[in-house]
Amino acid sequence: MTEMAPHTQAPPSDRVRLRRKRERGRYDRAAIDAILDEALIAHLGLLTPAGHPLVIPTLHARDGDRVLIHGSAGSRTLRAMMTGAPVCLTVSLIDGLVLARSALHHSANYRSVVLLGRATSIEQPGEKTEALRALIEHLIPGRWPDVRPPSEDELRATAVLALPIDEASAKIRDAPPIDDEADHALGAWAGVIPLEASAGPPRPDPLMAAGAPVPAYATAYRRSATA
Amino acid sequence: MTEMAPHTQAPPSDRVRLRRKRERGRYDRAAIDAILDEALIAHLGLLTPAGHPLVIPTLHARDGDRVLIHGSAGSRTLRAMMTGAPVCLTVSLIDGLVLARSALHHSANYRSVVLLGRATSIEQPGEKTEALRALIEHLIPGRWPDVRPPSEDELRATAVLALPIDEASAKIRDAPPIDDEADHALGAWAGVIPLEASAGPPRPDPLMAAGAPVPAYATAYRRSATA
Repeated sequence: MTEMAPHTQAPPSDRVRLRRKRERGRYDRAAIDAILDEALIAHLGLLTPAGHPLVIPTLHARDGDRVLIHGSAGSRTLRAMMTGAPVCLTVSLIDGLVLARSALHHSANYRSVVLLGRATSIEQPGEKTEALRALIEHLIPGRWPDVRPPSEDELRATAVLALPIDEASAKIRDAPPIDDEADHALGAWAGVIPLEASAGPPRPDPLMAAGAPVPAYATAYRRSATA
Repeated sequence: MTEMAPHTQAPPSDRVRLRRKRERGRYDRAAIDAILDEALIAHLGLLTPAGHPLVIPTLHARDGDRVLIHGSAGSRTLRAMMTGAPVCLTVSLIDGLVLARSALHHSANYRSVVLLGRATSIEQPGEKTEALRALIEHLIPGRWPDVRPPSEDELRATAVLALPIDEASAKIRDAPPIDDEADHALGAWAGVIPLEASAGPPRPDPLMAAGAPVPAYATAYRRSATA
């Protein structure tokens, strides 16, 4: 592993420009999209009515130039977002633990994206169904053809929101520990413990008939980093 | 797996009380602490000076009744927190993907904690060092005795903040898919794909002498869920 090449693309705004550890910043859509696509979940930041920041985990999916999320149409959080409130959607993949010789150079190898913006609500039933397809296919590629699609009632009870990817940055650390030169002679083991999300054997719903064949997308599920 | 027993403890405030899927809520410290301790990283939500929510991933550690985080003393984000700005610290563990027969009942099994409050800055060098010990031991239990402790200069360049655990809730889903009864006869496979964070073989720092013994905390690293 080597230090990253310097980024060649400018950040879209000062708000997402990295101020510290700038060499870790990436502003190209290829880097941003790859991280959004690999992360299982996102953390969504918004303001409560009283102005306190609130961060909630949520499933997400990238659909071209936007990120989709969904939830109950009755959710206060989603209703607040529908009115165009500012939000921040962050995803983080932890690829490894970085063990340095010195306490303060311990770190993690990671890939993260911070996306700022305002969401719009998807209302048209066909477009909503397409968004739900994207959300399920993001989580379990290949699953959609096997499921019962949403009914009209279910669609009415579900809010789907889209957040444009036009103000975002990625941050990547992918390197061995970086210790002070004076510490290189210390005896402590230094290096990286790689981490990834691994799937265990699928557990059938107890309500299902015994011996039902398990689809390949469940037996061979794989995600390459913890999310 | 079964649906959770109803929680017996009241939420500490309306701000962290679950309004939806209340049966998933937990307000007892044992549940909250276990999730904070297992999660590798946290997502910290705060307000930018312009009032936009911002969510950043950060390493954290629970130390008794508070959660510690650290960063560069020059960081604008941490400096803003030192002045007592309201923050939200959220951790999420993804234990499995829940495949239902119907699209809209797909879900994840997860354990999350949302903690609201205001941080205080830890200034005393001895207390700062203890906090850094907690942060490293949270990440890699057993590591601290092997590392060079922080110097006075390093401590000065590092900000350490503590957030009291007095307004928090946990949310847990640990169950098979819950489909509408009318869907039980559908042919789709339904069940849970369990997920966990798994560690690969440690990669020694290329600068280290070949053949250096690898400590057991690195070869046998284990975390029981993706974080």
